[in-house]
Amino acid sequence: MEKTKSHKTFGGQTTFWKHQAPSTNTVMSLATFIPGGREIGEAVIWLSGLTCTEENFITKSGIQHLLADTNTMVIAPDTSPRGLSLPGEHDSYDFGSGAGFYVDATTDGYRDHYRMFSYIACDLVQLLKEHFGVTRLSLMGHSMGGHGALVLGLRHPDIFHRITAFAPIVNPSQTPWGIKALKGYLGDSDWGDYDACQLLRRGYRHPQEIAIFQGTKDDFLGNQLQQEIFQQTAQEVGQPCRLSWCEGYDHSYYFIASLLPEALRGVV
Amino acid sequence: MEKTKSHKTFGGQTTFWKHQAPSTNTVMSLATFIPGGREIGEAVIWLSGLTCTEENFITKSGIQHLLADTNTMVIAPDTSPRGLSLPGEHDSYDFGSGAGFYVDATTDGYRDHYRMFSYIACDLVQLLKEHFGVTRLSLMGHSMGGHGALVLGLRHPDIFHRITAFAPIVNPSQTPWGIKALKGYLGDSDWGDYDACQLLRRGYRHPQEIAIFQGTKDDFLGNQLQQEIFQQTAQEVGQPCRLSWCEGYDHSYYFIASLLPEALRGVV
Repeated sequence: MEKTKSHKTFGGQTTFWKHQAPSTNTVMSLATFIPGGREIGEAVIWLSGLTCTEENFITKSGIQHLLADTNTMVIAPDTSPRGLSLPGEHDSYDFGSGAGFYVDATTDGYRDHYRMFSYIACDLVQLLKEHFGVTRLSLMGHSMGGHGALVLGLRHPDIFHRITAFAPIVNPSQTPWGIKALKGYLGDSDWGDYDACQLLRRGYRHPQEIAIFQGTKDDFLGNQLQQEIFQQTAQEVGQPCRLSWCEGYDHSYYFIASLLPEALRGVV
Repeated sequence: MEKTKSHKTFGGQTTFWKHQAPSTNTVMSLATFIPGGREIGEAVIWLSGLTCTEENFITKSGIQHLLADTNTMVIAPDTSPRGLSLPGEHDSYDFGSGAGFYVDATTDGYRDHYRMFSYIACDLVQLLKEHFGVTRLSLMGHSMGGHGALVLGLRHPDIFHRITAFAPIVNPSQTPWGIKALKGYLGDSDWGDYDACQLLRRGYRHPQEIAIFQGTKDDFLGNQLQQEIFQQTAQEVGQPCRLSWCEGYDHSYYFIASLLPEALRGVV
């Protein structure tokens, strides 16, 4: 773990890190906020959306103010490996760099590095326990990162205590961003283990109620984001889930910042 | 006033605007946050530092959360005119575009557009009164923008009710950033009316206590930022001023976000 910069923030520290990640076999970047003068017991893992790096959430969300007086840290990883030049990796915003989709790729080239599922579930979890001494982990994420939070949390309810998703992609195997990404990363392999709706149908459950926040003025609603389908599936299979429609909010970090206080009330 | 984008934020609206500004004779960009469902009575004008646009403060400061339940809006203008190509305007980060220094330039070329002092004191004030219906105005700023807040507030205590400065440049005529900028914008004209320490010595006063926040781990402390000199001058001339040393904080927006709750307690 190499600390690249650190800024005192609300009595704690916002810190940027780089580390060699076994799962991706690349250097990965991270941002953390650790409240000051406390024993840290819990971590929120924040998974960002398309085009983001480790910086977006930590600079725009205002989470430092909300966690300042708690014993909960936050960790925000980058959204893909970097520093590679795989075929097609840097050609579009919704595939390759900045768009890891939290899957373990199986296609040529990508399978050696694009292993963001394992990176979060193994490397990051180990780091949080061993380097930061955290004992309880929650997942939060936005859009592609909301998909990541749902899939990682449903597949590892033993590791991740709670799932909160802001405007998540809930059925990537049926919607455009997801179809493009899953085709590129998984090809003909089974996509179902990376689709939250399919995971529910396959019997995966999380013991805690899953919290979903969705703005009503989100431009991606309907086409990419189909919260009703997840809601309906959860109801059918008996997965506790609370979908909050947020009147007038869009897909931006202004939406995330605005709903974060309510989202964290369930976590910290 | 053309609205370029708007995002619901903490029940209010974060909005980006463009307008034709008489003082600069260019299109100027602005960001505002207006709390929801309230009659707005007061505005905080936020003046940003070197390299910033209208976006930095409004995306990074977390001020929306702090003003959400008040009748105070915030307005953050860009830090210079844009869209020009004057000699030397885009060659360095500390002069020309992104570095207007809140002066009315007198040098060739610049005098026709780089009139950020008048832009704030006239154009922006008129806009706030007529377009937004605000009756009370406060100034806040950071670094170069802290200098702007001090100079504008000391010269127009009738217009600006209160001055709060984060890590301000207090004596630009004596420190490197200021010397470069004032030479470029003012040449041989008198610099004293754009130097907060000199304004105090020339008899300018503000009836309210001036609040200054300064991080102790600020890399620019000493060389560019000399808070003790302003403090001492204020004491000598009888200007009420409160300098808060903020232990461990640097020059970043993490510092601003962290101290903003305390700074706003005096304002809203």
